[in-house]
Amino acid sequence: MSATLHRLGASRTPSLDPMLALTAHDMNLVNQTILARMQSDIPLIPELAGHLIAGGGKRMRPMLTLASARLLDYSGTRHHRLAAAVEFIHTATLLHDDVVDSSDLRRGRRTANIIWGNPASVLVGDFLFSRSFELMVEDGSLKVLKILSNASAVIAEGEVNQLTAVRRIDLDEQRYLDIIGAKTAALFAAACRIAAVVAERPEAEEASLDAYGRNLGVAFQLVDDALDYVSDAGTMGKDAGDDFREGKVTLPIILAHARADAEGRRFWKDAVEGRRDSDADFAEAVARIRDTRALDDTLARARHYGQRAVDAIGPFAGGAAKDAMVEAVEFAIARAY
Amino acid sequence: MSATLHRLGASRTPSLDPMLALTAHDMNLVNQTILARMQSDIPLIPELAGHLIAGGGKRMRPMLTLASARLLDYSGTRHHRLAAAVEFIHTATLLHDDVVDSSDLRRGRRTANIIWGNPASVLVGDFLFSRSFELMVEDGSLKVLKILSNASAVIAEGEVNQLTAVRRIDLDEQRYLDIIGAKTAALFAAACRIAAVVAERPEAEEASLDAYGRNLGVAFQLVDDALDYVSDAGTMGKDAGDDFREGKVTLPIILAHARADAEGRRFWKDAVEGRRDSDADFAEAVARIRDTRALDDTLARARHYGQRAVDAIGPFAGGAAKDAMVEAVEFAIARAY
Repeated sequence: MSATLHRLGASRTPSLDPMLALTAHDMNLVNQTILARMQSDIPLIPELAGHLIAGGGKRMRPMLTLASARLLDYSGTRHHRLAAAVEFIHTATLLHDDVVDSSDLRRGRRTANIIWGNPASVLVGDFLFSRSFELMVEDGSLKVLKILSNASAVIAEGEVNQLTAVRRIDLDEQRYLDIIGAKTAALFAAACRIAAVVAERPEAEEASLDAYGRNLGVAFQLVDDALDYVSDAGTMGKDAGDDFREGKVTLPIILAHARADAEGRRFWKDAVEGRRDSDADFAEAVARIRDTRALDDTLARARHYGQRAVDAIGPFAGGAAKDAMVEAVEFAIARAY
Repeated sequence: MSATLHRLGASRTPSLDPMLALTAHDMNLVNQTILARMQSDIPLIPELAGHLIAGGGKRMRPMLTLASARLLDYSGTRHHRLAAAVEFIHTATLLHDDVVDSSDLRRGRRTANIIWGNPASVLVGDFLFSRSFELMVEDGSLKVLKILSNASAVIAEGEVNQLTAVRRIDLDEQRYLDIIGAKTAALFAAACRIAAVVAERPEAEEASLDAYGRNLGVAFQLVDDALDYVSDAGTMGKDAGDDFREGKVTLPIILAHARADAEGRRFWKDAVEGRRDSDADFAEAVARIRDTRALDDTLARARHYGQRAVDAIGPFAGGAAKDAMVEAVEFAIARAY
């Protein structure tokens, strides 16, 4: 490892393209595994799973496994199967999330629960989750199994934590960070860490890649949550204001509420508890978030975690993989501007 | 192994008590693991999971792991953790099943989805499923992991298969057997098989225990399905007629439909498709099932699989464990009389 210095905030517009190019060949092989292993004699399973899997996702998590393996100059093929397992865990989580949230739109398309119903989404999610463990067992590393089974339990805990926090204006920043650390960052971290396991690198490198993924995951989710107050359906595949109307307390609301006067706090309490969900109410929410600089500071928090992600891989040798991983962080944050 | 001959149909009333007594000490240790490992910092998780886990289930599947280990004179402790993992898989499946079926009653108590809602049931199910894999990883046997991850995938496939067959009068006996083989018998088989893995027995003994569990599972499910046409809420924890009113096509209906005249077939098609769901319709269904001997022959099928279960463990040495395992099969079948 040789130290290099990367600072966020380069002038050009950052892009995910370098990481996509870096991992394109490997991703083809991962996609073959994904397609082969979502098959079943029960036609509804590949039909429903394929809708989501072929539905234009960025494959961010398996891509992180592949990029991390490139960073370590890993020359084997074990990571292809494991990257598919990671994507299956993620897909299962999305299927169940959309049932839990009663979502009707994801990545700009109708959700599986709307097309095939909640029961099918729950059960096909269970199938993909089981299949992901079968893939891991075929690989045969108990260490990888431990990392990913733990990540799965943490994700489920985070989802339950989020569920019990919904419509509660007393959710504070730390609990919010706990939730996104579990429901989003844990799988980002695991996806990166397992590359170090298959490459048989020392524990310190595992920890560095874990930290890169974890901090990127937190930054990624913070920006997603910010985008709900600036984006529209065209750029995100979900409508701006969705979180607001569902009473989801995310960092923009937590900060705006904490900085508000008594009248502002009443507005946020009413909004989160479902008594303010018109378009005019959402416009007022956006204005209040702007006036309290809550959006700017949510993004400042995201940059903080992004910088930590970049610094976590600082010790690794420079090159195309490292450059792509740094730019992926910059891209994750720049989405909001 | 020394061969002994067991035939079903002894005169006394068979009981699960010998198996309960055989496994009581071990089951205490399994229960401690279950209680310890369903804990979480998120209070809703142990609260919801505890409702079902403490809700008076027979712990049939972990009991089969423990009884099988006794049959093999296994003297270690690994099976305690693995039996807990088996119960967690089963509990996760029940939580998701009740969401899928919109059930409101299980084992005579209100279901978790009614008390805490579908989202919580889906997510706590996911948590228990992840936790079961963590327990298996702690045990460290890739062979056990393979058996149980495969069983989990097969269960989910079976559930989807059943979902796509609901309200379809053209479901035939073979597809019905495929469904119950996957959704019920696969975990019974795996629960028994893993005992042979931890006891480091040859493949043939693994296969024998797998066959015992699988055939018992099919018999068990056949009797459950028959009980829907003879039982009441007091004996089963669910109401007689539940399957009928949900349009679930089980073997009693398949046989009654196959043996009916044109008018009878019209009745069954109407019933399964939801146009016959009054108490009078259910009484007519019970009469038609009786008149076609569909219930008797469903139970005859159950006895066939029960006999296969008993014969599968024929080669093992006789003793308290084997006697208890034979009587458990007799008990499973006698429930319907």
